[in-house]
Amino acid sequence: MIPLRDKYQAVPELLVDRWFNTPEPVTLAGLRGKVIVIEAFQMLCPGCVSHGLPQAIAIRETFPREEVEVIGIHTVFEHHAAMTPVSLEAFLHEYGIGFPVAVDRPGDGDIPETMKALGLRGTPSLVVLDRRGFMRINLFGRPSDMLVAAEIARLVFERGPTAGQVATAEPAHGASSPCLPEGCKTS
Amino acid sequence: MIPLRDKYQAVPELLVDRWFNTPEPVTLAGLRGKVIVIEAFQMLCPGCVSHGLPQAIAIRETFPREEVEVIGIHTVFEHHAAMTPVSLEAFLHEYGIGFPVAVDRPGDGDIPETMKALGLRGTPSLVVLDRRGFMRINLFGRPSDMLVAAEIARLVFERGPTAGQVATAEPAHGASSPCLPEGCKTS
Amino acid sequence: MIPLRDKYQAVPELLVDRWFNTPEPVTLAGLRGKVIVIEAFQMLCPGCVSHGLPQAIAIRETFPREEVEVIGIHTVFEHHAAMTPVSLEAFLHEYGIGFPVAVDRPGDGDIPETMKALGLRGTPSLVVLDRRGFMRINLFGRPSDMLVAAEIARLVFERGPTAGQVATAEPAHGASSPCLPEGCKTS
Amino acid sequence: MIPLRDKYQAVPELLVDRWFNTPEPVTLAGLRGKVIVIEAFQMLCPGCVSHGLPQAIAIRETFPREEVEVIGIHTVFEHHAAMTPVSLEAFLHEYGIGFPVAVDRPGDGDIPETMKALGLRGTPSLVVLDRRGFMRINLFGRPSDMLVAAEIARLVFERGPTAGQVATAEPAHGASSPCLPEGCKTS
Repeated sequence: MIPLRDKYQAVPELLVDRWFNTPEPVTLAGLRGKVIVIEAFQMLCPGCVSHGLPQAIAIRETFPREEVEVIGIHTVFEHHAAMTPVSLEAFLHEYGIGFPVAVDRPGDGDIPETMKALGLRGTPSLVVLDRRGFMRINLFGRPSDMLVAAEIARLVFERGPTAGQVATAEPAHGASSPCLPEGCKTS
Repeated sequence: MIPLRDKYQAVPELLVDRWFNTPEPVTLAGLRGKVIVIEAFQMLCPGCVSHGLPQAIAIRETFPREEVEVIGIHTVFEHHAAMTPVSLEAFLHEYGIGFPVAVDRPGDGDIPETMKALGLRGTPSLVVLDRRGFMRINLFGRPSDMLVAAEIARLVFERGPTAGQVATAEPAHGASSPCLPEGCKTS
Repeated sequence: MIPLRDKYQAVPELLVDRWFNTPEPVTLAGLRGKVIVIEAFQMLCPGCVSHGLPQAIAIRETFPREEVEVIGIHTVFEHHAAMTPVSLEAFLHEYGIGFPVAVDRPGDGDIPETMKALGLRGTPSLVVLDRRGFMRINLFGRPSDMLVAAEIARLVFERGPTAGQVATAEPAHGASSPCLPEGCKTS
Repeated sequence: MIPLRDKYQAVPELLVDRWFNTPEPVTLAGLRGKVIVIEAFQMLCPGCVSHGLPQAIAIRETFPREEVEVIGIHTVFEHHAAMTPVSLEAFLHEYGIGFPVAVDRPGDGDIPETMKALGLRGTPSLVVLDRRGFMRINLFGRPSDMLVAAEIARLVFERGPTAGQVATAEPAHGASSPCLPEGCKTS
């Protein structure tokens, strides 16, 4: 499997303007005790559409809901006028995305607040929190289903406070242009 | 190859509000003498993103520009507020679509004007006009690259006024729900 | 994840005529303590070539060798004259399969001995033994990478004798004809 | 489309030891008047299994039999003992290949006679003869369906003796090792 980080990263609560696919807002605190998978995406990011979101759907279909919760977060850091909540709502409908999706709160610059707080490098990013809420996986780009499932399962079967570490593989490297085949990077 | 229609269909000029990827508006009359491939799509139609638009790009890369011209038309018939020209512009940029793309003119109902005039059944639709401007191919859904290239080449190599016919295969059948794996159908 | 069997299945030692890709024969006893993944295949089974063997390669690349060992077994139950060890050796070379591969010992009828002993239903079959050597997973057909990795990881992180159960999902159902898209079934 | 050769290449009759999938031997002379597509392959060549043979099947399904005939030729130039007619017969059955397939006649060295006579560079190779029997296309590797269909259609719609030329694109370049992702090359 992939190398682990040498320490856990605490994660602040999500800063969200709006939710889709859920009757009431989701909070990380409310999901404590489960492994939490956060798919950060932009609706006009090709790598999110072809890889990140289908992978999030597959994670949700493979792992039981009592153990693993999947949520999405729309972290728009470019083309802000093109990816409004109105467009996102139609996108979620057409692509059949049924898990809760948050709209990340706009920040001072281009990068929205939660994206900044989690230290994401671009989209798609797959973030996984362990049962205590520590960020243990933060993968940018197109990690394989095999790798992602193995890492999530590692957290599912983790028992008690272990001297674990955090995965931080970067399967694909971006460049100056924001959107490449592997994903869209912040500059 | 696919069955042919028994008569040619004349096609009116495109009714367009705006063009992208071209310094000045494109007209069918201006392209007369070439085979014209028209890819009708919606930016939030999954079958357009995964099949129709990549196929249009491949057509443009395979056939010489002196013989075959590829243009796109954004025929929004659902989620109108979600697929505005602002969103379309960002979409074209992120998906690397370099051929001219028209914004179909909104009509009285949901169906825009050019989509109505061409008699399209949904998106993606691949329409091909022969060198004299007659519609000879009108395919809804996900026709194979093999089939599409064979049919376009047939029109490229057609010499003089022949007793040709028009293909009207429907590789995939839609249902009541607008967007299915094969594409989005008008109701 | 997939449902579990209600009891463990002990597995006899592999009955093998010959090994490839290993200087000396591999035994299940010699691998005790590790999770053992056994990919049962036939070189002329389309589902093995397109799905089972690439999946076995991905398993080997994802999980560390100290935890998970991958071996193949060529369980020929049809076209015996067409899939001899001479042909298999060239096949392994051309397809770049680097893990140890056993030739299952021919039995009285068409089904070879190890295939019979493990109760396999056809090819490809993915069998996984836990650290104590019990068969816990026996999947015929084309299970997803996501599912397979989650199940293997479950066994990797299993600690001590647990009241675990054995997965026995059948992602695809065969018919009378031996080789279908999902795999080749014994009759 | 792809550049054309500056002259036509006459092609000798196939030198064949045995045929499958046809009650009597096929000859190029007997098919004169049709466009003839010849898929040269080896059953243990990964690029043939994943690309060349599925493409040949798609050609056969797309073009009418009165215009285009598809035949295969098993041009074994490596691992001869592993790819005998007995193994080939099972391979054709399992992979559902229904068009006539010839076994190329072994030559003095590793390269069989027809492969030598046609000047093929490796497998898979797609050779296309025009209606008069001249070789007009000779593609090694993995040409796209779009390109291949356009080129075949060009020959289908060709009328009378034209000053045509022969395509000789090489979509993928091999190296010293015989089998690479794009195909297997003769040394």
